[in-house]
Amino acid sequence: MAKGFEVALRTAAAQTERYIAGELDNLPGEIGKGMVYATQGGKALRAFLVLETAKLHGITSALPVAAAIECMHAYSLVHDDLPCMDDDALRRGQPTVHVKWDEAIAVLVGDALQSLAFECVLRPDIAADARIVLAQTLARAAGVRGMVGGQAADIAAETARAPLSLGQVMALQAGKTGALISWSAMAGARMAQADTAPLKQYGDSLGLAFQIWDDVLDIEGDAEQVGKAVGKDAAAGKATFVSHLGLDGAKRRAADLVKTACDALSVYGDDAETLKEAARFVISRTH
Amino acid sequence: MAKGFEVALRTAAAQTERYIAGELDNLPGEIGKGMVYATQGGKALRAFLVLETAKLHGITSALPVAAAIECMHAYSLVHDDLPCMDDDALRRGQPTVHVKWDEAIAVLVGDALQSLAFECVLRPDIAADARIVLAQTLARAAGVRGMVGGQAADIAAETARAPLSLGQVMALQAGKTGALISWSAMAGARMAQADTAPLKQYGDSLGLAFQIWDDVLDIEGDAEQVGKAVGKDAAAGKATFVSHLGLDGAKRRAADLVKTACDALSVYGDDAETLKEAARFVISRTH
Repeated sequence: MAKGFEVALRTAAAQTERYIAGELDNLPGEIGKGMVYATQGGKALRAFLVLETAKLHGITSALPVAAAIECMHAYSLVHDDLPCMDDDALRRGQPTVHVKWDEAIAVLVGDALQSLAFECVLRPDIAADARIVLAQTLARAAGVRGMVGGQAADIAAETARAPLSLGQVMALQAGKTGALISWSAMAGARMAQADTAPLKQYGDSLGLAFQIWDDVLDIEGDAEQVGKAVGKDAAAGKATFVSHLGLDGAKRRAADLVKTACDALSVYGDDAETLKEAARFVISRTH
Repeated sequence: MAKGFEVALRTAAAQTERYIAGELDNLPGEIGKGMVYATQGGKALRAFLVLETAKLHGITSALPVAAAIECMHAYSLVHDDLPCMDDDALRRGQPTVHVKWDEAIAVLVGDALQSLAFECVLRPDIAADARIVLAQTLARAAGVRGMVGGQAADIAAETARAPLSLGQVMALQAGKTGALISWSAMAGARMAQADTAPLKQYGDSLGLAFQIWDDVLDIEGDAEQVGKAVGKDAAAGKATFVSHLGLDGAKRRAADLVKTACDALSVYGDDAETLKEAARFVISRTH
């Protein structure tokens, strides 16, 4: 990883983890503990995107927004890992919430993390109208027209008679992973009430590259490094970017998308160097 | 039911059901269908409280807020009914979402309903600051310090060695049911940026009376009328208002709370008559 991005990513992770843990301090019962557990140890790519695009627009109060998107992302992972969904026992190299606690706790931890995301996203010291747009676009990105819709399409695909077409895989992933990543990338411009078009182009391309690379890691990665089970998609005969494009084709497509992402940032000049590093990181990561 | 309240409640139900169904029109897949299904056939007491207290404060754009609270309430029911939670097959006299579809769909329907609640709650045509307060207090009422916290305490109580004290039952219910009911009652004052104290007193008392009456119905009601399984709490030896206060004691306590709720509305004069009827309805309902 390039130095500047590496430091920014680590800082984003440390700051958001501390912020969220501070929110949940001294709560009775297991839910608060599970919420803290579920929001630690991630890469914090989404938090980084929020903080870095905020900085690009001169916004310095973005930490609650970065925490919000990590809460939202963490909730989706906790619910996706449930036995009735992907049934995963390992996440970020640790037991998943329903394994460490139980299913009821995992459902509630996810539910409360989503609520906390909306509590936090409305907090930054910016114009009230900008906060409202931020929260409403987050709600849409998370909901049935975004992340949940993508996850539902993913589950439906497993029982469908024919494997998904490449276009269908793209649409599914645009919801499942893309919606929150794009939202994170656009957050800075939204907070500043500036034009969101360049960051949308950046975020959409980055999100798609990210998902293609996840499919590559499902083939090439090893479970210990990736921090979750690998080889599941191929074993299940699932349509992925790799099954459609081949391993080399998928890598090429991801590289093209990273170039598109970086080109979209030209309007920001040298200030966007760390965001470009982030885009390059997405297709070099081993987990 | 008194005529004025009966009409207002039916209108609230019809309007919010139509609003939510309109939001979810033409969506592909099963999630949108499940969301509509889960938000129909309820009493819409919370929507009524939002619309009626808004009217009391001269706010006419409260329908999205009423829809929001019904989405939030419906999500909590869908998740509470899951096999890993209360494991209920019947809700509002119909098969629960995980019975009609499956568990994965039920998790996602609940998740997406919570997102939709936040999308809607920020829409009314009122001051931006009021919308932000409305959404943030909703997030808090729904989350680990409110509804989810109460539900978690309820689950923890099932495996605890000693039954809960009356104080613990009250604290649990203040979260599980009380938080959203109080929020609904206070919504009108919040939308108008007026003093929330009278409606808080009304909502807190009403919410507690509502829960006490639910415990009464668990003893006295029949499943067909109540629309869900009854007698479960008593069979499980669970601490409830009835186990602590006796059946007559619980009814007296509920009646006292309804009086407190009505007294709190004196500041609104005759305009609050329908809200008073609502309070009296809570302890006369058979389902």
